[in-house]
Amino acid sequence: MTDSKLPANDRFLRALRREPVDATPVWLMRQAGRYLPEYRATRKQAGSFLAMAKTPEIACEITLQPLRRFPLDAAILFSDILTVPDAMGLGLYFVEGEGPKFERTVRSAEDVARLAVPDMETELRYVMDAVRTIRRELNGQVPLIGFSGSPWTLACYMVEGGGSDNFATIKALALNAPDVLHALLSINTDAVIAYLAAQRAAGAQALQVFDTWGGVLSPAMYREFSLPYLTRIARELQRGDGDARTPLILFGKGNGTHLEALAASGTDAVGVDWTVELSDAARRTGSKVALQGNLDPATLYGAPDAIREQVRRTLDDYAAGNGGSRDGHVFNLGHGMSPDMNPDHVAALVEAVHTLSAR
Amino acid sequence: MTDSKLPANDRFLRALRREPVDATPVWLMRQAGRYLPEYRATRKQAGSFLAMAKTPEIACEITLQPLRRFPLDAAILFSDILTVPDAMGLGLYFVEGEGPKFERTVRSAEDVARLAVPDMETELRYVMDAVRTIRRELNGQVPLIGFSGSPWTLACYMVEGGGSDNFATIKALALNAPDVLHALLSINTDAVIAYLAAQRAAGAQALQVFDTWGGVLSPAMYREFSLPYLTRIARELQRGDGDARTPLILFGKGNGTHLEALAASGTDAVGVDWTVELSDAARRTGSKVALQGNLDPATLYGAPDAIREQVRRTLDDYAAGNGGSRDGHVFNLGHGMSPDMNPDHVAALVEAVHTLSAR
Repeated sequence: MTDSKLPANDRFLRALRREPVDATPVWLMRQAGRYLPEYRATRKQAGSFLAMAKTPEIACEITLQPLRRFPLDAAILFSDILTVPDAMGLGLYFVEGEGPKFERTVRSAEDVARLAVPDMETELRYVMDAVRTIRRELNGQVPLIGFSGSPWTLACYMVEGGGSDNFATIKALALNAPDVLHALLSINTDAVIAYLAAQRAAGAQALQVFDTWGGVLSPAMYREFSLPYLTRIARELQRGDGDARTPLILFGKGNGTHLEALAASGTDAVGVDWTVELSDAARRTGSKVALQGNLDPATLYGAPDAIREQVRRTLDDYAAGNGGSRDGHVFNLGHGMSPDMNPDHVAALVEAVHTLSAR
Repeated sequence: MTDSKLPANDRFLRALRREPVDATPVWLMRQAGRYLPEYRATRKQAGSFLAMAKTPEIACEITLQPLRRFPLDAAILFSDILTVPDAMGLGLYFVEGEGPKFERTVRSAEDVARLAVPDMETELRYVMDAVRTIRRELNGQVPLIGFSGSPWTLACYMVEGGGSDNFATIKALALNAPDVLHALLSINTDAVIAYLAAQRAAGAQALQVFDTWGGVLSPAMYREFSLPYLTRIARELQRGDGDARTPLILFGKGNGTHLEALAASGTDAVGVDWTVELSDAARRTGSKVALQGNLDPATLYGAPDAIREQVRRTLDDYAAGNGGSRDGHVFNLGHGMSPDMNPDHVAALVEAVHTLSAR
């Protein structure tokens, strides 16, 4: 790590270690995004999403924007979950209103054989430079989260060539040629571990894996194609870490069925979506891991009073399953923010979390 | 009921009552649909989806098409889940590639006050005529399923004015004006009960409620805005039924968190999606209800051998949670079929269910 001293506000890191805090920490998935007018202005200047992500100074600016408005307890690197397959040579591009796409897909043993783990300090240097720049600019104010897509979620985009409604191509591959898919997931896992370790070395103080599409799998297929790779990430990252362990969060949309297994993976925290009851999640995971979540993002479409009431419910729900204690909880949404959300409502949410959870 | 005699193949009705059968019955959500060339031909002639649904002879023809190809154990009325709000005067229409839309939305107390339960034998006569026509043409071969959207799912379309990615408008209504939403759900429930009772009177031998969007709600909101209305449907339909009770199936995408509550609702069966483990569902619901599901529809993109293997797993998974018995299971997909699926794979699936489950 470039800097091992604790940031001024360490609520987030303490909560991830299940240590007592003065108030529940809060950050929001996609907190740096299109709902902010200053983000839209920066994007207009930069020209495109990828130009922003690939220019460390701009990525730093975007990362810091929400922190200037709201007393959030963590910053998250502005980047994309698909930088790794892009660096593998698949050609990431964005079509307005359609999401990410790849120029080349991976669908056969030959396609997989052509892939290699990218070199982190050359092919993904722009990410590491962004991490270093942001750490310098943050100047110890709050911790910085680095992240990656999960092996399964990366594979979804690599095989489908973009987003999908039904994941027909990758599920057909899973059924008809599971060995090819496992080979792909294996190289993705090596790359994700190297990528997260490099972000950590560059200064990231916590790491999150987004298993955005794990929930589209049946439980049997999740146990075959997602869970073992998440577990390998948790174990191998930990092995290469020093004494001041950098906490890992495994977030997954639709991972509610698998909380016990995720808690046993070796991760420090599990992020859950809003269809999970936090009290139930806390009971099922015992005191093994911290939990992150899980307000329905659509709550931000409600009025400030209603937002406050839902924040209270979420805080209380967690405590109800954690023996009455609010420790070990990182407040977040159950999924990312949307462009049409109102920044004033975000302010109401953050304020409610801190005041309602003050010890 | 117009005809109380049992159909020649009564596996489906027996399984819904958890009685012993010679093999597990199977039908598929959206079994009458665009993946069939004969459906596309009929649609081309008819001009539009709504023209087909509103012409009883064509609805009958479409309903029977999959039964001519595959030895399915039930027919399901060809119709749409949104016929009820259409009959309430909201103006249902379809935009190619975008799904259903309404000309008028329901977003205020005034909007709700304007709604009334439609008259089933005038405003929705085309549905009842279709049921009568299909029963006559089926001639007792297999049972006919009638259906409706759930109160919450209908409300989603009525409030949003069509499909939605994030259900921002209806969730804002739930947070900011819950009384208005409850008033809407209440009238929807009255209408759904009247609609299903009318289909039953016209000859439907089983009834299914599609709570397609129940799973987008947090558990607390599901318990407030969907579950109580499903429960009222189950209780009131039963009250108006005779000795030879017409079985009710409550299907919900993402209902896995709520299986105990659904099993206690008074319904005969619960339909689940593929993210639920059937063994777990069977254990959690005890022997209170039959279970319907739950193969991942994307399995149909696999090769016939892989489909057979997944069918075997699904059958065995149910039995594992049901004390080793396959009784009380209706085989289905966990969600509807898609237009790009191969009819030969459907044949492989149906054959696998019957042969692998033969007692």
